[in-house]
Amino acid sequence: MVNQYMYGIGSKRSVIREIFEYAKARGAEVGPENVFDFSIGNPNVPAPDCVKEAIIDLMNEPDSTKIHGYTSAQGDLEVRKVIADSVNKRFGCSVVPECIYMTVGAAASVTISASALYEEGDEFLTFVPYFTEYKVFVKTAGADLKVVPTQDKTFQIDIDAFRAAINEHTKGVIINSPNNPSGVVYSEESIKKMCAVLEEKQAEYGKKIFLISDEPYREVVYDGVEVPYLVNYYDNTIICYSYSKALSLPGERIGYILVSPKIENWQDVYFAVCGAGRALGYVCAPSLMQKVIARCEGSTSDVSIYARNRNLLYNALVEYGYECVKPDGAFYLFVKSPSGDSYEFYERGKQHDLLMVPSDDFGVPGYVRVAYCVQTETIERALPSFKKLIDSYRD
Amino acid sequence: MVNQYMYGIGSKRSVIREIFEYAKARGAEVGPENVFDFSIGNPNVPAPDCVKEAIIDLMNEPDSTKIHGYTSAQGDLEVRKVIADSVNKRFGCSVVPECIYMTVGAAASVTISASALYEEGDEFLTFVPYFTEYKVFVKTAGADLKVVPTQDKTFQIDIDAFRAAINEHTKGVIINSPNNPSGVVYSEESIKKMCAVLEEKQAEYGKKIFLISDEPYREVVYDGVEVPYLVNYYDNTIICYSYSKALSLPGERIGYILVSPKIENWQDVYFAVCGAGRALGYVCAPSLMQKVIARCEGSTSDVSIYARNRNLLYNALVEYGYECVKPDGAFYLFVKSPSGDSYEFYERGKQHDLLMVPSDDFGVPGYVRVAYCVQTETIERALPSFKKLIDSYRD
Repeated sequence: MVNQYMYGIGSKRSVIREIFEYAKARGAEVGPENVFDFSIGNPNVPAPDCVKEAIIDLMNEPDSTKIHGYTSAQGDLEVRKVIADSVNKRFGCSVVPECIYMTVGAAASVTISASALYEEGDEFLTFVPYFTEYKVFVKTAGADLKVVPTQDKTFQIDIDAFRAAINEHTKGVIINSPNNPSGVVYSEESIKKMCAVLEEKQAEYGKKIFLISDEPYREVVYDGVEVPYLVNYYDNTIICYSYSKALSLPGERIGYILVSPKIENWQDVYFAVCGAGRALGYVCAPSLMQKVIARCEGSTSDVSIYARNRNLLYNALVEYGYECVKPDGAFYLFVKSPSGDSYEFYERGKQHDLLMVPSDDFGVPGYVRVAYCVQTETIERALPSFKKLIDSYRD
Repeated sequence: MVNQYMYGIGSKRSVIREIFEYAKARGAEVGPENVFDFSIGNPNVPAPDCVKEAIIDLMNEPDSTKIHGYTSAQGDLEVRKVIADSVNKRFGCSVVPECIYMTVGAAASVTISASALYEEGDEFLTFVPYFTEYKVFVKTAGADLKVVPTQDKTFQIDIDAFRAAINEHTKGVIINSPNNPSGVVYSEESIKKMCAVLEEKQAEYGKKIFLISDEPYREVVYDGVEVPYLVNYYDNTIICYSYSKALSLPGERIGYILVSPKIENWQDVYFAVCGAGRALGYVCAPSLMQKVIARCEGSTSDVSIYARNRNLLYNALVEYGYECVKPDGAFYLFVKSPSGDSYEFYERGKQHDLLMVPSDDFGVPGYVRVAYCVQTETIERALPSFKKLIDSYRD
């Protein structure tokens, strides 16, 4: 009586959801402060003050319909001007407000972009490990997601594997840097090589291959690491941005698609984005939040808290003997299972009240994702359990 | 290089958009106060005070992550409890929070519902005149929209035409009462007859036929008219609700899907709704607005302003000799073209600086839609032009 695919993806309990329920039940048994939940990527750092200030200030507007009324489907032009100016200033490029389409967050942005581009038979590629939902979003567009292996241990792009994965059906490549779940930032060197391969393959097949950059973690980076702005490296780029992490507003669903004006006939891509947004039932991005963005673009939450958490957790885990890449961004640590089996490690972690996400759904077996967007004190109190956990492999 | 369907629906300028541009240009010529724009359904009545009060109060929460963090995909349970209680109290039914799924407004709700239900070969029906976008939303699900004629002049359901339109492929019927663009509220008698036909056809084909009730105008009704709550009339009902009009929040994109718990195995439908929401890139409904709804559910904007506008405009137009149904709800008047041609009437209206939407895209030729969600004073000043317009047909 219902669509079986939708029923399937709607009824299947995700591992993260199961962990959430387990954490609640276990917390009731032993006290919630004794359950160390590292499973969820919900920012714990508060939104910067400008968010609250902007909202309260907007509430002083005497005509509420100016705040809460429909904006155009593409988003308020004033907001898009602010974003274009900020992008141009920060990354030294020349985008225009007319190439920006406001969205209900990054998930919407990727789904709309894939739907806008998809033609029959098209494939999209992404690199492992990857954000699980890409498979769902790309399928909504009608396409398959093809997963490209990366370099062992560093998870940087493996150029030969990438070149081998592209064929005449490749419509786009989804990249996510800083990466969820690994925290890896693709180096400028990696990016340049990847773009060179794309140029080479575009010439070989006589067609455009788009780079779709999903970058909600752009501002969550450490030690002054630079995340290359792809519009400056490759013409056929579409940026999918979200303010969820930069401004700690994940529930508000606010972000944008930026269609690079360097794409030949970029307006055609932009129109297709508008059409896909319409087809998927998006009328406009939330209007109050659009106006908040106009006032807060360029601000960020206090990322130094994540940096402190990363250093504390990474240094301790490495000292205890765990193997993991030092993350340059996002708020995840991708830790190798001492047994090589992610589920075994996940289950054993639970016995020490450490809740982590097994990596298999991210396209790589043998790891867990540890989300450190938690109170620093939680990490401090959890460290002895991490120690006991690895020691349990040595008994 | 892009999806041609998406490009098509994204690049085609809608008539409403064209009118919007025309109004701007014409306003620059003759002064904006002399252009009477009745084309857009953007509520002009302010949001009730509880909206601003709720937002400011929520801003006092010291931990911003509790306000702006992710909610569950289905929406905050507390919010859904408030809605279920309100629905049960107002309409005397027994819905549960677990059958409610918060969405980014009614467009999202209808798109998600159709996608959740669609199986290969399925059709959806709707009655004329109908909200243009249904065709797009249903196509996203994979289905065709079949349009059912209604009674001449009253636009009430034509039971014989309805019966004749249903076949073994009919998966659902989308109804919209109060109706955009006609303002008609389907009478309880119409609803009962329609539901009897649905029961008859379900028995004939041995399958479920769903009633999808798109009701953003539920609270915008006049003279104490009652809008039957369909959960009480037909078991296989899905309500697509939006707060856009009731609370004058159309830009905020907040509403819900209510899967009637009277549907046999309703949880299966609910899971499919969750799956379709996920597939279409909706992560959760905007979190701040969810919490606003928990505090404002049951309140409405001052609907008496629309009632005053309706009376003023309807009485004058009828006195001048126009033909139109007296609307019982929404904020639209569906006016018959004196020439029988909607575009001719629309163009002639423009010559009097009256901007109205030709009806053809709503599935009925020969009318225009006049949106009276404008300042009452605008209507007062426009009346002489409406008089001149009809007189021009008598010259």
